[in-house]
Formats: sequence, structure tokens, C-alpha cells
Amino acid sequence: MVSSVHGESPRKPVRQVHYELLTIGDELLLGLTTNTHLAFFGQQLGRRGVTLQRCVTVTDDAEAIARQFRETWPRSDVVFTTGGLGPTCDDRTREVLAAVLGQKLVFDAAIEHAIQERFAVFGRKMTPNNLKQAYRFERCEVLPNPNGTAPGLWVEQDGRVLCMLPGPPNEMQPMVLDQVFPKLAKMGLLLEREAYVQIRTAGVGESALETKLQPIFDRYGGALNVAYCAHLGMVDCRISSANEGLSAAQLEVIARECGRLLGEDVATYGHDSLAKVVSELLRVQDKRLAVAETGTGGLLASALNEISGACKFFAGGVVCCSNDARMELLEVPECLLLQHGAVSAECAVAMATGAAERLGADYGLAVTGFGSETTGPGGNPVGTTFIALHAPHGVWSKKLNYPGSRSTARIRAVHAALDWLRRELLRVASGAVAPTRRSGVMQ
Amino acid sequence: MVSSVHGESPRKPVRQVHYELLTIGDELLLGLTTNTHLAFFGQQLGRRGVTLQRCVTVTDDAEAIARQFRETWPRSDVVFTTGGLGPTCDDRTREVLAAVLGQKLVFDAAIEHAIQERFAVFGRKMTPNNLKQAYRFERCEVLPNPNGTAPGLWVEQDGRVLCMLPGPPNEMQPMVLDQVFPKLAKMGLLLEREAYVQIRTAGVGESALETKLQPIFDRYGGALNVAYCAHLGMVDCRISSANEGLSAAQLEVIARECGRLLGEDVATYGHDSLAKVVSELLRVQDKRLAVAETGTGGLLASALNEISGACKFFAGGVVCCSNDARMELLEVPECLLLQHGAVSAECAVAMATGAAERLGADYGLAVTGFGSETTGPGGNPVGTTFIALHAPHGVWSKKLNYPGSRSTARIRAVHAALDWLRRELLRVASGAVAPTRRSGVMQ
Repeated sequence: MVSSVHGESPRKPVRQVHYELLTIGDELLLGLTTNTHLAFFGQQLGRRGVTLQRCVTVTDDAEAIARQFRETWPRSDVVFTTGGLGPTCDDRTREVLAAVLGQKLVFDAAIEHAIQERFAVFGRKMTPNNLKQAYRFERCEVLPNPNGTAPGLWVEQDGRVLCMLPGPPNEMQPMVLDQVFPKLAKMGLLLEREAYVQIRTAGVGESALETKLQPIFDRYGGALNVAYCAHLGMVDCRISSANEGLSAAQLEVIARECGRLLGEDVATYGHDSLAKVVSELLRVQDKRLAVAETGTGGLLASALNEISGACKFFAGGVVCCSNDARMELLEVPECLLLQHGAVSAECAVAMATGAAERLGADYGLAVTGFGSETTGPGGNPVGTTFIALHAPHGVWSKKLNYPGSRSTARIRAVHAALDWLRRELLRVASGAVAPTRRSGVMQ
Repeated sequence: MVSSVHGESPRKPVRQVHYELLTIGDELLLGLTTNTHLAFFGQQLGRRGVTLQRCVTVTDDAEAIARQFRETWPRSDVVFTTGGLGPTCDDRTREVLAAVLGQKLVFDAAIEHAIQERFAVFGRKMTPNNLKQAYRFERCEVLPNPNGTAPGLWVEQDGRVLCMLPGPPNEMQPMVLDQVFPKLAKMGLLLEREAYVQIRTAGVGESALETKLQPIFDRYGGALNVAYCAHLGMVDCRISSANEGLSAAQLEVIARECGRLLGEDVATYGHDSLAKVVSELLRVQDKRLAVAETGTGGLLASALNEISGACKFFAGGVVCCSNDARMELLEVPECLLLQHGAVSAECAVAMATGAAERLGADYGLAVTGFGSETTGPGGNPVGTTFIALHAPHGVWSKKLNYPGSRSTARIRAVHAALDWLRRELLRVASGAVAPTRRSGVMQ
């Protein structure tokens, strides 16, 4: 338990503050909605030096909520709840938790006003059941909800914090980051800044990475915590101070030393996706990319399209499911397809070049593989994938073979293709290759 | 508590059997992996008449697992655990739960043999830590894992069932469906068959659906349970027997009566996706589809590409992020783009036709909208989207406007486009429209 939550120094380090998350809603337990709350809170708390200790999902049933909260409250320092704050009769979180904590609910005219204003903006009439959301705990702070009608409630009681939040992620997440975390940081219940420096690598294995970096880390002994986290072709290395002995600036220096050692294996420092990293490189170099996909069927295009302002660097993509499409849209020669098959280095190269040329892009990326369920004339087994990169100064292909499920293999192929382009753009930026064909580099 | 779990009739109806899910793993609480287990178990149990009562996620810490299991076990009839069965030192589920239940762990040579065989298939050498997975409870059944090394364990004790499963979904899910559910059904702890008949509708609102169907349901009074579940342009109506009074055949008859009333608003009976439904219609009619996307950026192509054997009915897709791409790949006339803009009915129509014609497909679907961050010459506000359908007998467009987040609007647009094609294919199948241009129908 945190002895005081009113701005005094807490008695325990942040990492020992006990956080629990209580996600409420029949729709979660019926599997109608995937519970993304856990991943959001887990990631965001982790960045601020806190490990979420438990997540419990219960139904909308009042007794189930009460029973769980009675068990959760005394063992926690901070409890988040999501869901059950809305206007309908199955929204019971506010009422049940008030009863457990012995608080009265009081009507708050300011909340009513905010709800009415929100309805007015959308030109809709407020129904009476919405007024339920204008009740708050007698002793609490109201957390405004800029994206919905149900406000959050912040309660300090028994030396603990209860933070009740609405269920929809687009309402809840900004409230947590903009309002809740700053309050918790001020109370010393999580770190003001990110707890670790993350070196995000791509295209290098976890054990190879560890072997390479260990000599650096060894110099700091027990002062440094190091954690590796692998995800489908990328490995994150997170370094943090073991006993608050190292400052943020010192961690940054260590991370940069690792970066110099790893060279282009470092995709970024922080949390950006590979698509985002590639998009920045393309923007800086004022280049555009086109893609052609078989097997990944739109995943590569999707990853690029999700970046804000994608039109600036992403020329477009072609999803091919047939040789006709390859020939017609990408000008892959029929004789090439007949001789080598669609799943071949030759076809990948032709697709990458075709995409770049047809779409007037500087770079082209192609993936061709496991979408086809038959083996090609080359006799490649199912699971074989070729990726190709077309650049202004050349075009190349690579063979990939990922074991595991098809959905995993697709994401790995997308990562491998983006990583390849990233490395090539770095080489161009460093002057290691001339950026245009006129340089005479082999094409 | 279930009084007997050995094949005798249980003392309570299936819907009152208390199921809990315990998902174990630091990676879940750190948000490194989204917890898909909850959605899987929730959906699958729901289909068999059971509501999962609670899901608790705890860390790999032995004391945290033990403490949670001691609380969960006495209040449950069936407990599933996922995770913590692997070969590494942070896999502690087996050991901790054995200790709580007072069971010894014994080495099982048959499990060792299975693990060794799996390594042999992949041509890898088994490391000694893998032998940890060959230990099982003294009194249990071993559930073979065809897709991994860690087997599941099935324990009946204290009149309850504990089912320990590995964490990776591609290993766990087939074990649940093929091995665990049949055992539970045999014990009367879940239904042998699906608990409800689901009428999956598309393109019709929840309240309109309810208004239409209520007169049918009223005839059955309390004998029938009806539940509606809306998800982004689709609404599922699930009907089940309230007190086991209606047989599966009777539910089927009621569902078909609803279906006749709803007509083409019914997408399917059951759980198939719209893409799957469309793919079946295309296959039966021996037609192929091509798509062109702006804004949805590959999501429509992806949805189609995920259907097994997609090459048969899906010709391919084009993701356009620029007018150049629209002109070059889809032959959208430049003058059209200059006059109407990319986000327009005219452009949507040209994209749909362009995709179908360039890819030699019978049908073309186009989405153009909120990918563009500026408003077009038509002055359409951000959020406006046009979809278009090209068929052998005509081409049309529709304007959509979805409030809410961009990611939600994208999925709604994909659903709207697929639903439109579905309806058109039904009309062709019914003979309401002639399937070819030669029929003289307006183009």
C-alpha cells in the first residue's frame, strides 16, 4: 500500500507499486470484443517503470464486479477499471464500486452540461438515460472525456487510487495518457519519463544481438537492467537503470554506444514501426515507394498506408493473385512466368521493377510466395517466399523460408521486405551507393 | 461445483457450470502479446451454451500463480490455464499447480518420445531443458500437442476439472476444439452441439432487425432466447432454447422463417465472414473479382486473400495513393480526376471498372475515401467515402459517411463493399438480373 498519495514521496520504489486492471463487460467474456485494454495498459505502464501485476475480466453482473473489487482493492496501490460507465442498464461499475467503498453518488451539473454540449455538437438529442453518467462519487475528481459522454472518475481512498475509465479504446486511451499518467507521476506512482531506452533492431537474431552487446553491458555490472523482446524479425533491447543509479542521459549514452556497434541493424531508438522508419527515410530523401504482393495479399500496402500522410512517400501497391495480373499490371513477361513460375527470384524481381515503373516510384518492393498453394516449376516447397527490392541503382531478390503458421510467416515477410529497403536507404544516405542509375552501378 | 465429473449427468444445467480462464505470462501483462485467448475461449464456450465467468491474467511468478489458483479453484467447475508449460525456467504452471493440488509430478517416457519425434521431424536436436515438458501430474490425462512440444494436461480432482494448455494459439486452439471440448461435452459440462442458431445479417441496423423479427419471436414467448450482436455493419441474431424446450431442429425452422422474412439481408447462418460468403457465391457462379482501394489501403484485398484458395475467385487488387496510380494502373481518365477529384462517385466507378477490366475479372469493387487527407474539388468533407461496384451488367456507386475512428470506418467500408457485391450476386443467382452485358441491361 502507498502510505500517502498526496504528493509526498512514496515509501516504495515505483517498480514495487502494485497496479491491477479490472476490465468489465460481458462482451469481453463472450469474445465479441478482443480485450485490447490489457496490451495498452501493460505497454504504457511498462514504459513508465511499472509492471502491471494482474488483469481480471469480469461480467457486467453487479455481484461479480463487487466480489472482484473487494478482492482487488486491499491488495493494490492503484486500480484501473474499464467499462460499465455508460448510460444503459448493464453499466453498473460506478454504482457497485461506490457501494463497496461506502461513497455516495451525487449529481454533478457540470458533467450534465458537458454531456449536453457533446450531443449538441453532433446535432443529436440527449436521451434521459444519459443523465446516469452525470453522477459521480461524492469524494472524487472528474476526468473529462473529450471523445465520449462518460467521464472518468479518480478516487483516492484508503491510501489507494481507483481510476474508473470508459470502455471504448478511443475514449479511454487519450484520457490515460493525457490526464491519468501525469497525476500518477506527480504522486510518484510511476516514472515521469520513459523507464528504459529501447534499441529496436531488425534482421538480427536475439542471441546474436546478446553476444554482440554483452561486453558493453558487462562494464556496468549490476547497475544496468537489460531485457530482450523478439517479435517476428525484430528484436528490442531495453536498457534501464537497476537502482536508479544511472541517469536518463547515461542510459542514452550506453544506447548510442550499442548503436554504433550494431550499425544498420538498429532500426530505431524507441517504438516506431519498420514502416514508420522507412517512411521517414523516404521522406528525407524525397523518394517514393511502390509495392507488389502475392501471399501477403495487401499486408505490406496496409502497413505503409497506415502511416499518417502516406500519399507523400507511398505511390501505391498491386496485389496479384494470378499470372494475368502479374503480366497486365506489372508487365511481368509471360515467358518468365512459364519458365520460372510465380514463386521465383526472377518473378519477384520483375514484380518489384514493374511496380516501381508502373507507379512512377523510385523504389519497388515485391513479395511472392506462400499465397500460391501449389509448387512452381522450380519445385519450391510450400512456405518458400521470395522478396525483391528495386532501387534506382539496381534490383535484387532474396529467398526466405519461415517455419510456423502462415499468418506469422506473412508478417515476417513484410518485416523482411521493409527492413531490406531500410538498409538500402541508409546506404544511399551514407553515400555508400550512388542514388541514381547514372552512376553506372550494376543494375 | 459439479458433483460428479465421470460421465454421469451433472446436477446443474450447462449454463450454470462455472468456467474460469487463467492466462499466465509476463508477456501478456507487459503488453508484448495481445491476449487473444480470452476472445477465443469466450466465443467457443458461448457457442456451446456456456458463459465464461472470469478471465484472470497473472505474471510468471510462482507465488502469483499459486495465489490466483487457490482463489480460482474452489469457486469454479472448470478451469483452463494457458501458458507456462514450456521448457524454460520461467515456465512454472505445471509445478505450481501440482503443488497447490497436492499432486506429484512424474516423468512420462511417452511424452519424452513424442517430444523427441517432433524434434526429429524438424531435423533439430533436442536440448535437455525440453525434458521438463515430459513431467506430468501423477493423476491426469495427457493431451497430445500435434503442433508443439508441450502437451496439455487434464486433471479431475475435487469434483472439478483443470485443463492446462500451452500458450501459443496455433498449438492451444486445435487442442481445445479437437480434444478438450469433446471430453467436456461427454461429461455434460457443455453442449454437444452449438447452443444457438445464428442468423448473420449485413447492411441492416439492429433496431430495424429487432422490429422486423419480434412478431415471429413473440409466438414462442419465454421458450426462446434472442440476443443481438452488432459489429461494424453486420448484426448477428442468435436464437436459443430458453429451457431446453426447443430442439435444434425447431430452432432451425424458426431461423429459416426469420430468413425468409429478411430475404437478402441474411448474409449467412453461422459464423462465416462476409468475404467468405462472397467467395462462395463467386465460386458457384464461376466468376472472379478484382478490387481497387484508396483509404482502406489493402484491407479489402487482405480480407479476400485470407480465404483459402483465394486465387480461384480473387483476381487481384490495386492500392492507389495517387492520381498517377489511378491513371496508370486503372486507366482512370485524368480529366475525370481533375473535374471530380479522387474522392468522388465518378472516380469510384472508374476505379471499379478499371480494376475489373485490367485484371480480367467479372466483378470489380472500389473504395475511395478517407485515405486522402484533403477535400477534393467536390468539397466532400473528410470522412466521406465512395464505393463502387462493377458487374457484367452495370456499374454503380454509393456514398458512405461513417462517424467514429478511422480504423473503424475502414472496416465498415470493407463490409459495405463486400455486402453490396453479395447482394448483387444473389440477384444474379435468383435470375432477377441477367448476368451478362449482352442482356441489354443498362451499363
